[in-house]
Amino acid sequence: MSGPAKNGPLHGLKVLDLSRFIAGPHCGMQLGDLGADVVKVERPKRGDDTRALEPHVGGESLYFMVFNRNKRSITLNFRDPRAHTILREMVKQADILIENFRPGTMEKMGCGWDDLRAINPRLIMARISGYGQEGPMAGEPCFDGIAQATSGLMEITGDPDGPPTMGGTFLVDYATALYATVGILAALEDRHKTGKGQMVDASLMGSAVSMLVTAIPEQAMLGRAMTRVGNRDRYSAPAQTFQAGDGKWLHMVAGNDAHFPRLTRIMNRPDLLTDPRFATLDARMRNIEAIEAIVAEWIAGMPADDVVALLRQAELPSAKIATLPDLLANPYMREAKQIVDIPHAKTGSFTTHGLTVRLSDSPGSIRRAAPVLGEHTEDVLGEWLGMTHSDVASLRDGGIV
Amino acid sequence: MSGPAKNGPLHGLKVLDLSRFIAGPHCGMQLGDLGADVVKVERPKRGDDTRALEPHVGGESLYFMVFNRNKRSITLNFRDPRAHTILREMVKQADILIENFRPGTMEKMGCGWDDLRAINPRLIMARISGYGQEGPMAGEPCFDGIAQATSGLMEITGDPDGPPTMGGTFLVDYATALYATVGILAALEDRHKTGKGQMVDASLMGSAVSMLVTAIPEQAMLGRAMTRVGNRDRYSAPAQTFQAGDGKWLHMVAGNDAHFPRLTRIMNRPDLLTDPRFATLDARMRNIEAIEAIVAEWIAGMPADDVVALLRQAELPSAKIATLPDLLANPYMREAKQIVDIPHAKTGSFTTHGLTVRLSDSPGSIRRAAPVLGEHTEDVLGEWLGMTHSDVASLRDGGIV
Repeated sequence: MSGPAKNGPLHGLKVLDLSRFIAGPHCGMQLGDLGADVVKVERPKRGDDTRALEPHVGGESLYFMVFNRNKRSITLNFRDPRAHTILREMVKQADILIENFRPGTMEKMGCGWDDLRAINPRLIMARISGYGQEGPMAGEPCFDGIAQATSGLMEITGDPDGPPTMGGTFLVDYATALYATVGILAALEDRHKTGKGQMVDASLMGSAVSMLVTAIPEQAMLGRAMTRVGNRDRYSAPAQTFQAGDGKWLHMVAGNDAHFPRLTRIMNRPDLLTDPRFATLDARMRNIEAIEAIVAEWIAGMPADDVVALLRQAELPSAKIATLPDLLANPYMREAKQIVDIPHAKTGSFTTHGLTVRLSDSPGSIRRAAPVLGEHTEDVLGEWLGMTHSDVASLRDGGIV
Repeated sequence: MSGPAKNGPLHGLKVLDLSRFIAGPHCGMQLGDLGADVVKVERPKRGDDTRALEPHVGGESLYFMVFNRNKRSITLNFRDPRAHTILREMVKQADILIENFRPGTMEKMGCGWDDLRAINPRLIMARISGYGQEGPMAGEPCFDGIAQATSGLMEITGDPDGPPTMGGTFLVDYATALYATVGILAALEDRHKTGKGQMVDASLMGSAVSMLVTAIPEQAMLGRAMTRVGNRDRYSAPAQTFQAGDGKWLHMVAGNDAHFPRLTRIMNRPDLLTDPRFATLDARMRNIEAIEAIVAEWIAGMPADDVVALLRQAELPSAKIATLPDLLANPYMREAKQIVDIPHAKTGSFTTHGLTVRLSDSPGSIRRAAPVLGEHTEDVLGEWLGMTHSDVASLRDGGIV
């Protein structure tokens, strides 16, 4: 196949990624995975706070490495106004800037949206925050867990008899990163028509609220408060986690009216199909404890592998619940390049998730592992601003980079 | 402000959305929110399976309505080969097609990627599936819960003493929708350079695996199996859910070295800062039970509102855990348009989440609530293919629409 396979659809776009933690860096990494030239701008000495987080391998934080591949790192000390000047010079050449400082911080640096678009009308500035750039909540600190708490996501997660439960991953950060990426790429499309960039405002709270399935209209229109249902599907039954005879957990989805007859077939229980308690989806939802108890008993009589094999034959979605060792041992993950090894100067190689979305003709690539702090300061300031080795040395002496 | 405020950055793009359930429809809805003309193609009579899911208001499923605003609906009966011909005619005019049939289904209809790009080389075809379009797992059925189980996401969610726990929302479906949208928009950018569309392959499994924070490298490189930590942050302490004196739950993030001193100040506990068990982040992680117990006791002595007020003063992220009634009563949600009412012909109005990512100059819009099944068959077939009322009537008589 011909074409720029190693370049990706965003090849040629220049990105300044000033962001820290997860939501911003994960957004910048999407652009990098898709071929953009992403320059991560960090504080001298400490860099992104996540560089300090455990565990470390070869002196590098796994946390930092997971969210910052396909980027180069430069340092800029934003406590020094000369760093603001350098940033503004770089903005003249950038297509995209990503930041997730507290709203108002960029303005104090003379790098607010009005400042930057005056310098470069083609710039797309993505701003990620807890509550959006405007309004009385804009200045409030926020993290993924706070957004999960405030949005109702915690209220609807976990066991019905237990407390509100946080997602096991930073799901709101991840979603916000992706919404910001969508906004950036949509602004890029608009720029083809207008010649102008614009500001993209992505918030943790908006992203969290967008993931509430039917909870908002159920509450507003029916006065029904969605809450926790454990591992049950909310809309069909039986779709639940069960424990097999060998003690292993499995998850099974066989609740809709296309699936349920197939389940009764492999269970050898044609009677369930005509039982008025279970014959329709509505009936099963009303008798959910009863149908789950029957399925649980059937599953408890066999090892998990046998249950999954039977469910697979009937084309019913099911899977054993994987531990992390199971995940790494699953051959699909390597074959499908969902898990890959990236060469890394300090750790030999780094094992992480692969390219997530795949494009047939310009598929993106993983070109480099996450950078060491300031690894590319001289390269990038040379390329972008024509600075020489001694220019950068004097910036370094002045504590600016 | 001038400009096409009601059009959005994707105005003028034509999308055929053949997808069902969540991941595909949520992707199509992103494009619609951003201004694209999205035509949802559904089976006659039943339409998208989600139209049957409870609860209904005014005869319309809330579930369907949540994922299908900003779309028009036409029907096509893909059991009839004449419907395949109509689809191929529409593809000639489409920029983007979204589908999440089982891999191979489109091929059987003569509408695989090779067929469609031969008809329209500019087409971008987004294919959403459980395991991707290729490989031995491609044909296996998958749902959000299965991806959560297989990826390790369930293993890392929930109470450490309880079973693996599913997210309270379809987080993998949501993420897959957004990755697919990112892929589509990246392909659109590429099309500006090459003049050609391409295939975008987004999978539930890839999307799930991309959200495992440091679990993959911890397992592969350190042999440490990440598992459940309840509502704790994995990387800092104290960051946890606590119950206040009035019985209400709140979530608080005060675990990193910038936050913790501020927490000790409002607790009037300067001793904690010099206590070797708690002085550094590493020390607090090693003594996490002890520091959480101290904080829990402090919080249990006050009503939740008082705790949150103190934490806010110290600029520490915190929030009471909202129920759905709390969410709907939160004034921020309406002011910031995170929750909005859309006019709806059958239900009067429909309450749902607002536009998630906001663009300053071409902000997208909510132009219509989700369509009734086949509401726009005649309009769209007229517009796109020049069909007359009687053409469509004869298709209807033939059971094709």
